[in-house]
Amino acid sequence: MAEFSHLDAEGTARMVDTGAKPVQRRRAIAVGFVECAPATVAALREKALPKGDVLTVARIAAIQAAKRTDELIPLCHSLPLDAVDVDFEVTDKGVAIRATASTSAKTGVEMEALTAVSVAGLTIYDMCKAIDKQMVIGGIRVTDKIKE
Amino acid sequence: MAEFSHLDAEGTARMVDTGAKPVQRRRAIAVGFVECAPATVAALREKALPKGDVLTVARIAAIQAAKRTDELIPLCHSLPLDAVDVDFEVTDKGVAIRATASTSAKTGVEMEALTAVSVAGLTIYDMCKAIDKQMVIGGIRVTDKIKE
Amino acid sequence: MAEFSHLDAEGTARMVDTGAKPVQRRRAIAVGFVECAPATVAALREKALPKGDVLTVARIAAIQAAKRTDELIPLCHSLPLDAVDVDFEVTDKGVAIRATASTSAKTGVEMEALTAVSVAGLTIYDMCKAIDKQMVIGGIRVTDKIKE
Amino acid sequence: MAEFSHLDAEGTARMVDTGAKPVQRRRAIAVGFVECAPATVAALREKALPKGDVLTVARIAAIQAAKRTDELIPLCHSLPLDAVDVDFEVTDKGVAIRATASTSAKTGVEMEALTAVSVAGLTIYDMCKAIDKQMVIGGIRVTDKIKE
Amino acid sequence: MAEFSHLDAEGTARMVDTGAKPVQRRRAIAVGFVECAPATVAALREKALPKGDVLTVARIAAIQAAKRTDELIPLCHSLPLDAVDVDFEVTDKGVAIRATASTSAKTGVEMEALTAVSVAGLTIYDMCKAIDKQMVIGGIRVTDKIKE
Amino acid sequence: MAEFSHLDAEGTARMVDTGAKPVQRRRAIAVGFVECAPATVAALREKALPKGDVLTVARIAAIQAAKRTDELIPLCHSLPLDAVDVDFEVTDKGVAIRATASTSAKTGVEMEALTAVSVAGLTIYDMCKAIDKQMVIGGIRVTDKIKE
Repeated sequence: MAEFSHLDAEGTARMVDTGAKPVQRRRAIAVGFVECAPATVAALREKALPKGDVLTVARIAAIQAAKRTDELIPLCHSLPLDAVDVDFEVTDKGVAIRATASTSAKTGVEMEALTAVSVAGLTIYDMCKAIDKQMVIGGIRVTDKIKE
Repeated sequence: MAEFSHLDAEGTARMVDTGAKPVQRRRAIAVGFVECAPATVAALREKALPKGDVLTVARIAAIQAAKRTDELIPLCHSLPLDAVDVDFEVTDKGVAIRATASTSAKTGVEMEALTAVSVAGLTIYDMCKAIDKQMVIGGIRVTDKIKE
Repeated sequence: MAEFSHLDAEGTARMVDTGAKPVQRRRAIAVGFVECAPATVAALREKALPKGDVLTVARIAAIQAAKRTDELIPLCHSLPLDAVDVDFEVTDKGVAIRATASTSAKTGVEMEALTAVSVAGLTIYDMCKAIDKQMVIGGIRVTDKIKE
Repeated sequence: MAEFSHLDAEGTARMVDTGAKPVQRRRAIAVGFVECAPATVAALREKALPKGDVLTVARIAAIQAAKRTDELIPLCHSLPLDAVDVDFEVTDKGVAIRATASTSAKTGVEMEALTAVSVAGLTIYDMCKAIDKQMVIGGIRVTDKIKE
Repeated sequence: MAEFSHLDAEGTARMVDTGAKPVQRRRAIAVGFVECAPATVAALREKALPKGDVLTVARIAAIQAAKRTDELIPLCHSLPLDAVDVDFEVTDKGVAIRATASTSAKTGVEMEALTAVSVAGLTIYDMCKAIDKQMVIGGIRVTDKIKE
Repeated sequence: MAEFSHLDAEGTARMVDTGAKPVQRRRAIAVGFVECAPATVAALREKALPKGDVLTVARIAAIQAAKRTDELIPLCHSLPLDAVDVDFEVTDKGVAIRATASTSAKTGVEMEALTAVSVAGLTIYDMCKAIDKQMVIGGIRVTDKIKE
């Protein structure tokens, strides 16, 4: 049976020991989506785009959260991020989020990319919740994981 | 057109001023889901359940993140949480997450409940990612918002 | 001789005990200025204004820092902020910053307003430093302190 | 026209990608000044100096803030600081602050030095504000930036 | 059998719900001790006392940690502290630490007092470890818990 | 007389400059003990063991605190931890705690191991305090410090 890297033989939670792993350049991309009502999409297009504050606030929140992934996710290692990029596309159904995290470290950065996407989604939710009570954040997943 | 509470007349981001609002008991419930492969569900049931560490670690991460929602989401107010409850159900498709946040404050706690669900989902993802590269976190939404 | 509230009779640092003080609505306004070269002002006006990201990033950083004033300044109390407003004016000499912090608490919020101004200034510095090595942040002071 | 490193071609905020930059020893020095009333300077000399707690508290606050610069300034990278030194000189006009930050990293540490100076100034302000309502924090700038 | 307040009927960790509890003034006192070698005590007395930086740094660290107890201890509530006092006595065997935490809140502050003592002890350890490899931190306990 | 590494010639607190030190693999082990009443030990064995949440919550709290040692202890450097292991043994007298911290860095990790032990002890205290008012946390010390 598949083994959990974060559980030892007795099922106890643990950090994976990265002491013997080499430092490598690594990059991960994650995506997600905030489903909004048509009126919310219209309001975003009218009031908050193309250079409106909603998406800028979400981008900043995402970058800051990515840098603190190790504080949020208990068994994650602290990584020095080389870059975090966060892009948005407003579609007829809501807001698509894409985050890329890069590092030169001993372990991968998919959790940082996923954290950026999640917090971007939460921030968009927060800023739109006064006009839309039915939003759903979903489709959060890793699309690329690259080691150079 | 609907108005964003977090943008002023010129579209500039702002915190909502809660100075004149009364302190009330408030509660919010949010849900979400981590879709896993059948082998991951089997491994969770075998190795990590019923009292395994995976879900306990996710619960603790969720509670801690809820207490720090105001650090993660830029325009959120700092709220003194009375309680945060996080429950999980492992189904054939993955793990269902439900979080309840309660406060006695001037503003609602749905962002705290949503943050708890999101970070629980990220932590489950982190602990299962060595055995499952295809997980998707989704369905994150508010189901109840109560003011007493 | 004037007495330091944060030093006891022997000169030892201490928090002021606010236990017997009433909760009151309080507000404080602080200002500051980032002096820039004319070319930087021109670039800000061209590329980063009126709705450019520089000032939005600085505003978000300021609001987030104001909420964490008690972590930065050792003897400050933790206060639940009702609102933080941050405004900028780009003049021929640089960027004027004004922050207003409001609370309902036992002690004043001038440190929160000053922290918001300082971190807004640092963020503007960070975003302009590639094009201007001579900026100076100054004039940081409290202009109003109101108790209702 | 000069280009902002933290804005892309469309004016969107971004982190600079440091992935391809070499690790180098870097050092930056920043200064600032807290203008105080003569009575405050006298009180500092009488009660808080030469080994009084005011400046020690400010020094500790500055060192701790420098280590958290990446949390305060949204687009800053996380840097492992080798050292942070903070010195004060009490003059007839107030307190001069000087901070030196050192690292072995891919990017410079002037923001860390500036953050140390700013938070030292805020802490001095906090500790003296009961006896002086007219202080001004200013002259915050980088004096040296060295790459070895 | 005695019941754990932080475990539900199935043994699952939870926060205690304080929603129905009244706000009361509460105070707790905790103590602890750092055992040092005689040479360390002599050095502390010679170089670091009576107004030396070692104990001031430890006091500041303790106050700051007390304010963040809810971040360190997963099931603790966030409390607005009215005051934190930290006192030291250097004896022939080492350093005695005493911390008092006060709040006006729905739940007690013994964890805040204990956290202050623990972090004061760790900071003293850190500052003396270059000259003493045999220190032991112990005797950390609550001596008083008062509700007014 | 022995010299404090964290005080300069005038007794002023300072960080040790690690700029010229080589990166080495380092490991430190620390231990501690939470003395409990026999009824608490019995309750732990009955309700909270072998896979109960008390020790898992304490382990997670310890790992998370170890990663933030530099925020808690003012003059500590920020270190990228390769691993943190936390083990518990419930004896007739209470709970023995052992933490191992590993890094590849310029300076040692004993403070990280000690912080993990201390916060594990505080968390156990918090979770058992409803049934035991007489616990004492002690015996916190370094047992091993290894440089490879």
